Amino acid sequence: MARALVLERPHELSLRDIDLPQEPGPDDVKIKMHTVGVCGSDVHYYTHGRIGPFVVNAPMVLGHEGSGTVVEVGKNVATLKVGDRVCIEPGVPNLNSRLSKMGLYNLDPSLTFWATPPDHGCLTPYVVFPAAFTYKLPDNVSFAEGAMIEPFAVGMQAAVKARITPGDVGVVMGAGPIGIMIALAALAGGCSQIIIADLVDEKLKIAGQYDGITPVNVKSGTLIDVVKGSTEGWGADLVFDASGSKHAYPVMMEAVRPGGAIVLVGNPTEPVPVDFASLIAKEVRIETVFRYANVYDRAIKLIAGKIDLKPLISGSFPFEESIAVFDRAVEARPTDVKLQIVLDS
Amino acid sequence: MARALVLERPHELSLRDIDLPQEPGPDDVKIKMHTVGVCGSDVHYYTHGRIGPFVVNAPMVLGHEGSGTVVEVGKNVATLKVGDRVCIEPGVPNLNSRLSKMGLYNLDPSLTFWATPPDHGCLTPYVVFPAAFTYKLPDNVSFAEGAMIEPFAVGMQAAVKARITPGDVGVVMGAGPIGIMIALAALAGGCSQIIIADLVDEKLKIAGQYDGITPVNVKSGTLIDVVKGSTEGWGADLVFDASGSKHAYPVMMEAVRPGGAIVLVGNPTEPVPVDFASLIAKEVRIETVFRYANVYDRAIKLIAGKIDLKPLISGSFPFEESIAVFDRAVEARPTDVKLQIVLDS
Amino acid sequence: MARALVLERPHELSLRDIDLPQEPGPDDVKIKMHTVGVCGSDVHYYTHGRIGPFVVNAPMVLGHEGSGTVVEVGKNVATLKVGDRVCIEPGVPNLNSRLSKMGLYNLDPSLTFWATPPDHGCLTPYVVFPAAFTYKLPDNVSFAEGAMIEPFAVGMQAAVKARITPGDVGVVMGAGPIGIMIALAALAGGCSQIIIADLVDEKLKIAGQYDGITPVNVKSGTLIDVVKGSTEGWGADLVFDASGSKHAYPVMMEAVRPGGAIVLVGNPTEPVPVDFASLIAKEVRIETVFRYANVYDRAIKLIAGKIDLKPLISGSFPFEESIAVFDRAVEARPTDVKLQIVLDS
Amino acid sequence: MARALVLERPHELSLRDIDLPQEPGPDDVKIKMHTVGVCGSDVHYYTHGRIGPFVVNAPMVLGHEGSGTVVEVGKNVATLKVGDRVCIEPGVPNLNSRLSKMGLYNLDPSLTFWATPPDHGCLTPYVVFPAAFTYKLPDNVSFAEGAMIEPFAVGMQAAVKARITPGDVGVVMGAGPIGIMIALAALAGGCSQIIIADLVDEKLKIAGQYDGITPVNVKSGTLIDVVKGSTEGWGADLVFDASGSKHAYPVMMEAVRPGGAIVLVGNPTEPVPVDFASLIAKEVRIETVFRYANVYDRAIKLIAGKIDLKPLISGSFPFEESIAVFDRAVEARPTDVKLQIVLDS
Repeated sequence: MARALVLERPHELSLRDIDLPQEPGPDDVKIKMHTVGVCGSDVHYYTHGRIGPFVVNAPMVLGHEGSGTVVEVGKNVATLKVGDRVCIEPGVPNLNSRLSKMGLYNLDPSLTFWATPPDHGCLTPYVVFPAAFTYKLPDNVSFAEGAMIEPFAVGMQAAVKARITPGDVGVVMGAGPIGIMIALAALAGGCSQIIIADLVDEKLKIAGQYDGITPVNVKSGTLIDVVKGSTEGWGADLVFDASGSKHAYPVMMEAVRPGGAIVLVGNPTEPVPVDFASLIAKEVRIETVFRYANVYDRAIKLIAGKIDLKPLISGSFPFEESIAVFDRAVEARPTDVKLQIVLDS
Repeated sequence: MARALVLERPHELSLRDIDLPQEPGPDDVKIKMHTVGVCGSDVHYYTHGRIGPFVVNAPMVLGHEGSGTVVEVGKNVATLKVGDRVCIEPGVPNLNSRLSKMGLYNLDPSLTFWATPPDHGCLTPYVVFPAAFTYKLPDNVSFAEGAMIEPFAVGMQAAVKARITPGDVGVVMGAGPIGIMIALAALAGGCSQIIIADLVDEKLKIAGQYDGITPVNVKSGTLIDVVKGSTEGWGADLVFDASGSKHAYPVMMEAVRPGGAIVLVGNPTEPVPVDFASLIAKEVRIETVFRYANVYDRAIKLIAGKIDLKPLISGSFPFEESIAVFDRAVEARPTDVKLQIVLDS
Repeated sequence: MARALVLERPHELSLRDIDLPQEPGPDDVKIKMHTVGVCGSDVHYYTHGRIGPFVVNAPMVLGHEGSGTVVEVGKNVATLKVGDRVCIEPGVPNLNSRLSKMGLYNLDPSLTFWATPPDHGCLTPYVVFPAAFTYKLPDNVSFAEGAMIEPFAVGMQAAVKARITPGDVGVVMGAGPIGIMIALAALAGGCSQIIIADLVDEKLKIAGQYDGITPVNVKSGTLIDVVKGSTEGWGADLVFDASGSKHAYPVMMEAVRPGGAIVLVGNPTEPVPVDFASLIAKEVRIETVFRYANVYDRAIKLIAGKIDLKPLISGSFPFEESIAVFDRAVEARPTDVKLQIVLDS
Repeated sequence: MARALVLERPHELSLRDIDLPQEPGPDDVKIKMHTVGVCGSDVHYYTHGRIGPFVVNAPMVLGHEGSGTVVEVGKNVATLKVGDRVCIEPGVPNLNSRLSKMGLYNLDPSLTFWATPPDHGCLTPYVVFPAAFTYKLPDNVSFAEGAMIEPFAVGMQAAVKARITPGDVGVVMGAGPIGIMIALAALAGGCSQIIIADLVDEKLKIAGQYDGITPVNVKSGTLIDVVKGSTEGWGADLVFDASGSKHAYPVMMEAVRPGGAIVLVGNPTEPVPVDFASLIAKEVRIETVFRYANVYDRAIKLIAGKIDLKPLISGSFPFEESIAVFDRAVEARPTDVKLQIVLDS
């Protein structure tokens, strides 16, 4: 039995004891959790009880953006040792599957994901986790930053799949946490400039504090002009969608240059009508992003050097205040990019 | 003045004299045309007078799928000589443009295309053409086959952009001329099998005479089963659309495997509603194809060896019967894959 | 204890009982072996007792090109069932390693490989093998062909890493078994033509019986002329080395076109002096091939359709004659492409 | 007639009048030169009279790293106008060639290159140049920086051909001007860290002033340790050679990780013996770089934002002192990264 933040059912959270595995298997490590970030999906399970086909039918521990310290290692584990400061990659595939063998383990249908029903998350003092998906943090990366690797990994996957050519100009639709992560990953990953678009000035202000990011409020009606102005009228090499909004699609199609690419990260909740003839006339490529695979190591290298995620941590709270933190997250304040819970202060 | 098949206005063709350039410039060749294929776009201009923004406002010579013999070369031309048997690539870009310099000359907005208003086509005994877009035919490729390179080039562009991994299983939606060209290019280009789908049995029968092509009538309701049966339930690596039909989209999205790609060649005439969330869940890539660039040489190499296009030539007629040929093409008989006009028999 | 072909020490083979695992673990299958091909590496261990760092210090069962029938499945195995006809991929990595997770499991330093010291091979009536590296054969692929998938997979890896653009012209240096496998994989994988070079006419004759393969004896001094003649003087798009000979290198560098690629499969036994300035002037890419990863499924699809490997099976012998078969293999008759041993006739 | 810095013959420079074209053709612009950088190749022609097959047989104007202002435009030129501040890409291909059409115009054998015999360079007050290879500078890029785009473009080509995955760790062999350009382009192009190696501390100190660049003197014997320390023992994802030294090759092969790539920029002057078996065992890819193509636009975008090249400009001198500048360049002071000549101050 271990204390944990448990989603009992929609709208009801408890901090209580629950039965969780405490003994690492031969390929696992046991981690004393330090910091866990609150993700939009955690909040959505709290408010709605489901995301698509994943339904909360039984009490579930929340949290999947975590960092901590290794306190025990399974007998086969050679890559980590007790005392290592680490972060976790919360999707665990069957490595024997055809897609995993190809390196596409994020697409393995048998993958389990922390804090996705029926699997528990990591808002609890100790977790047992496969060593193969646990990553050592360098000394100059804090636990708070370590707990940001997971959302940043989504941005990294977008940057990898975009196949950036150095110097590309990118557009990101949506300046929420994932939009900013995409912008930072794409800039560090080779873009010369990112133009980020949103409807909310507070979000754009946070994004715009980074060198190389140009914020544009789409309500100004100037987005296409800004893109053309930054590209000699040519259009953006790459356009990323973090909004999931159907209204973004015609804008993206106008913003992208001939031979450019659109990278879809946000999930539209309904079918989007698309004028494919205009995409075809520009021979636009579309890439889609589902979580991430093989980006944690490289994400950590970038966080240790080029990229400072600390300005995105909007608040940090003790474990005992977890329920209040979730209630604040439900408010979706535009200045709250990332709220974190500290278990081991 | 030269005799030519002239589209005077929608529904009215003449075989008559018209003023056309006869003197090659320094980078041009003059070609005695031998064979010209009838393309769906030629027929569409005949029946409708326009394709999208391209409107027939003045008499225009038709024809852009042509082969012939070089009879004169401009003073700068070193790559061709009088007597060479050749075919022509009918889209001529501005090679100084940014996209042309990148190798994406098909996307150059200033490109002119034969038999696309206001530019004349090649259904006339002699044409003047840039040597850089005129390709020598090997001895074992006939003029009839040479006049098939243009439509085959569209299939080649699809095969190139698909980035086939050897052994991939492909699906092609639509068994018209372009669908069959895609199927043949993808098979020769590395696919192990192509499953081709259409509503018309006669078309499927023609496609199915090639080794490696499995025809499926979509009315049978078995397409997805055939795809799954050919891929151990895994889905097709690549799905090509040659239909332009909105009904093809949900089928393509179901047919493609996780991590696979959809390649769009056919132009939908209206917006298509797309469930992007399901594409994202499989991390599907979409490529789009607009004509072709840098594929003629390699198309000719394949036609000279691996691929036999002759079964697709449904009829061959003298130049003087051109108008009758077009009237037959308007009928769109399912067994007429390609009709050709011979000027120099 | 099981009967097996055991390499006791260099130059000494026995057919005798030896202790081998017979019980599948939860992720394994047990296979009744049907056919096993004799590979050059098996023969090299027999004659030299070592390959590079791998030294035969204890009796070792030979054979790693195998096919057979599943007779038992471990409790976690869902992808195979008793009675399935299968072939095996003999390199087994640690799927938890960083390279395996990336899809590069062939490069995992902890990979074990059948019939590579100290690991036993499959020349024995029953073997236990991980299901994740056991592949089902379609009905129209024989056991003899199934035992050819392993060497063909090397050709497939070369074809995949070459990144063939459909219609490419390729050159293969060396017409031994691996050279022919590369030629067939590259042709099926998208090349329009393969020019294969060797010093031995008998080998070239076998290769040359396939459509699309042009054999050239390098002693004729005409190889570069043939390449230029097939490419309008432009050079080959792709050049593969299966010879491992240092003499091949200057030829490859002359044969490849500007912007083309050289793919190295054969292992030179000593350093090769290379004029990199001439490679740089043509911006040539070099790829290297170490065994294979993620190609078995697609190799099987090609063998089931486009490619006929049966002409390469030079002789088939019962298990009891194994030692004689190895002694014949030592002779390296130029007409012996592949000798096979049948355990279950 | 125009005043120019003329290399009369090896070891003899004059500032004198010479006959140069002054009238732009229809696709040309006329540029009033502002700043021209001194390149190692200019110096090599001065001291040796030749580079490989290019021999100075007649007086030749030096200089090919230039920026200036458009003063006249040819009648077809729509992309530039009088008054535009520009830099020039000094290699001019035949855009009709097969390689140019593919986007590989740097490999076109008929390309002419400024200040490469027999073609004159740009150390003269006015030059006539093709508009297609003249690039507009943004307001925040100075003429001095504009004259740095040419050497930076070599680094860009290396970064593009490396196909950087965001977060890759790179090694650069050689900290001369090109080595530093590669390091900066690779960092801006997606690498998380560059380890740069040289024998000369002064050069390393200049390189090391940039964030993300770790200098290592190879005489310390610690290079491999530093690489392993930065990559958890795994090796560098990418290794670039800017040294052209045969001694760099075994180091590069040890430094690169399995599945990584080596990018060759420096030209070895003699054949280099290479142990290909060890490259093959790691499946290393080798890319080679010959000048650049299609990188100027993106280089300018990066110089306008992420990258500051000004610390690399070691001295700036008036046109009348050109000969003295070349004599200083001959000394090859380790602290002289780039010397520039200003014509229009």
